[in-house]
Amino acid sequence: MAVKVALLGFGIVGKGTYKALEYNKEIIKQKTGLDIEVVKILEKNPQAIECGIAPVELFTQDADEILEDPEIKIVAEILGGFEPATSFIMKALESGKSVVTPNKAVVAKNYKVLHETAAAHDAFIKYEASVGGTIPVIGALNKQLIANTFTKIEGIVNGTTNYILTKMEEEGLSYEAALAQAQALGFAEKDPTADVEGIDAQNKICILAAEAFGIYVDPEEIPRKGITEITIEDIKNAAKKNCKIKLIASAHNENGNFSIGVRPELVPNTHPLAQIRNEFNGIMVSCSMSDDIFLSGRGAGMDPTGSAVAGDIIEIAKIIEGKYNI
Amino acid sequence: MAVKVALLGFGIVGKGTYKALEYNKEIIKQKTGLDIEVVKILEKNPQAIECGIAPVELFTQDADEILEDPEIKIVAEILGGFEPATSFIMKALESGKSVVTPNKAVVAKNYKVLHETAAAHDAFIKYEASVGGTIPVIGALNKQLIANTFTKIEGIVNGTTNYILTKMEEEGLSYEAALAQAQALGFAEKDPTADVEGIDAQNKICILAAEAFGIYVDPEEIPRKGITEITIEDIKNAAKKNCKIKLIASAHNENGNFSIGVRPELVPNTHPLAQIRNEFNGIMVSCSMSDDIFLSGRGAGMDPTGSAVAGDIIEIAKIIEGKYNI
Repeated sequence: MAVKVALLGFGIVGKGTYKALEYNKEIIKQKTGLDIEVVKILEKNPQAIECGIAPVELFTQDADEILEDPEIKIVAEILGGFEPATSFIMKALESGKSVVTPNKAVVAKNYKVLHETAAAHDAFIKYEASVGGTIPVIGALNKQLIANTFTKIEGIVNGTTNYILTKMEEEGLSYEAALAQAQALGFAEKDPTADVEGIDAQNKICILAAEAFGIYVDPEEIPRKGITEITIEDIKNAAKKNCKIKLIASAHNENGNFSIGVRPELVPNTHPLAQIRNEFNGIMVSCSMSDDIFLSGRGAGMDPTGSAVAGDIIEIAKIIEGKYNI
Repeated sequence: MAVKVALLGFGIVGKGTYKALEYNKEIIKQKTGLDIEVVKILEKNPQAIECGIAPVELFTQDADEILEDPEIKIVAEILGGFEPATSFIMKALESGKSVVTPNKAVVAKNYKVLHETAAAHDAFIKYEASVGGTIPVIGALNKQLIANTFTKIEGIVNGTTNYILTKMEEEGLSYEAALAQAQALGFAEKDPTADVEGIDAQNKICILAAEAFGIYVDPEEIPRKGITEITIEDIKNAAKKNCKIKLIASAHNENGNFSIGVRPELVPNTHPLAQIRNEFNGIMVSCSMSDDIFLSGRGAGMDPTGSAVAGDIIEIAKIIEGKYNI
């Protein structure tokens, strides 16, 4: 029997998730023995409904058709924003459905209650896609690296700002010109505040610190400085010191001292994070038993984020179906 | 109740695994709710037994005390070599025990029979530590990235040869001098054949190709060329082309064309693999939905490999105990 999945939202990431699950159905079945089926999609935008990616009969405009359907075991929340995303996630968890989401703002703000609610209702909440897109960092912290104590996690976790900084550095563009280019290419939103002011990175480092250290800090309390004041001169001065300016989100936890923050930093050209160009992300994890692990890849986009959401859905489906041996 | 684990072998990686599980016992319990206990260790070397890392009463010289103990659910095979490692692994799986091993030679040679035997006896065989030490590549292929089809996987998967090539390049050492230095530091064995001739990398790319593409090739049939013929002149000529020489293990699978091999290659200085220095490893995975993912870290050593073995043990223990929700 198929594991029934519903999508809340059919924007960029919703489409990517649908494609990852449905277009790769046979591959997934072959790899895992699982039959995963997207049975309903919440979306009201006619352009999304009629875009041809998913059959129109899957769409509904009534969230309860999904949230109150006992057959649906896994819900992917891909609406973005705080509401109704948060309420939908809570309702799904409370009815024992597992939830997968790339929504870093909701996960960061509600980290504890989401985990508590999931545990209380024997459900899962998973959000690998919320940090670094396809970079498998959350899974690595909780699985392959779990025997380690972590002392530091730092990364370039916002593709928009890294794209802007790369263009300023490599092409000598002003901040404004680089931002305009990022907007034209879809790497920056019309209102770029959440990215350029470091709010997006704030949410992501909140999640990473909670995963790595078990220390939760309300994202709004995390010190942050964005890149809006960075000038070409700053970048040239950095270059003279063989450095690049990167927006670094970091958290340290060593010998009882904990610190966390987001700010532009000088990164030596020889450091792996200095090699991360354009909209790519990179994350470095310092582990007690395994030195530094460095992970990089595409941090956003329809297919990358969709594939990360699908990865979490498949993992939950494995557990639901007891197919863990495959 | 504690999940009982036994170690077959107490060399470098055995000690690292013991430390990862026992010295971090409380942290692991806190993170996962699991109580994991190493109850027996197979080892005859008195120096290892008396080294003070594990209590002497845990040691036995009789493998059957472990393999025939129904209380022991997970066995870590860390003896190295083909025999008795292979026989012990098979016996453990046949009696329904799960097995974790960093033994790339055994896994590569017996890939299919290990998986079939594990599945037939409702047991797990896991070997994250067999490729790239702590680099979480096998887990990422099978979990976070599972919705992808992979087209290419290439990497520096042998720390010894990368150390030698780095010293030749950065310090102008001859191959022989760099090898002697690697041996003095314990990065190369007295008989370095398996490393410098690419046999170790052959086993690792065999495993990666099987995981990524589901295509198994007997490791001995994988074309290979080591680094013994690389000269300082070769490295200087590469530098003139803005390249480094790296021992690259790679497998491609695209449009029905599959290829696999190990050989020294010219890697442009701008490529992430060119940044991998000394004994570190790096692996690049090309994914259908998420472009290239790059992972790097320490590929070997007591603690890194031990922590990767422990990661697999903890993951199996979670499934055995049904603690997957934590």
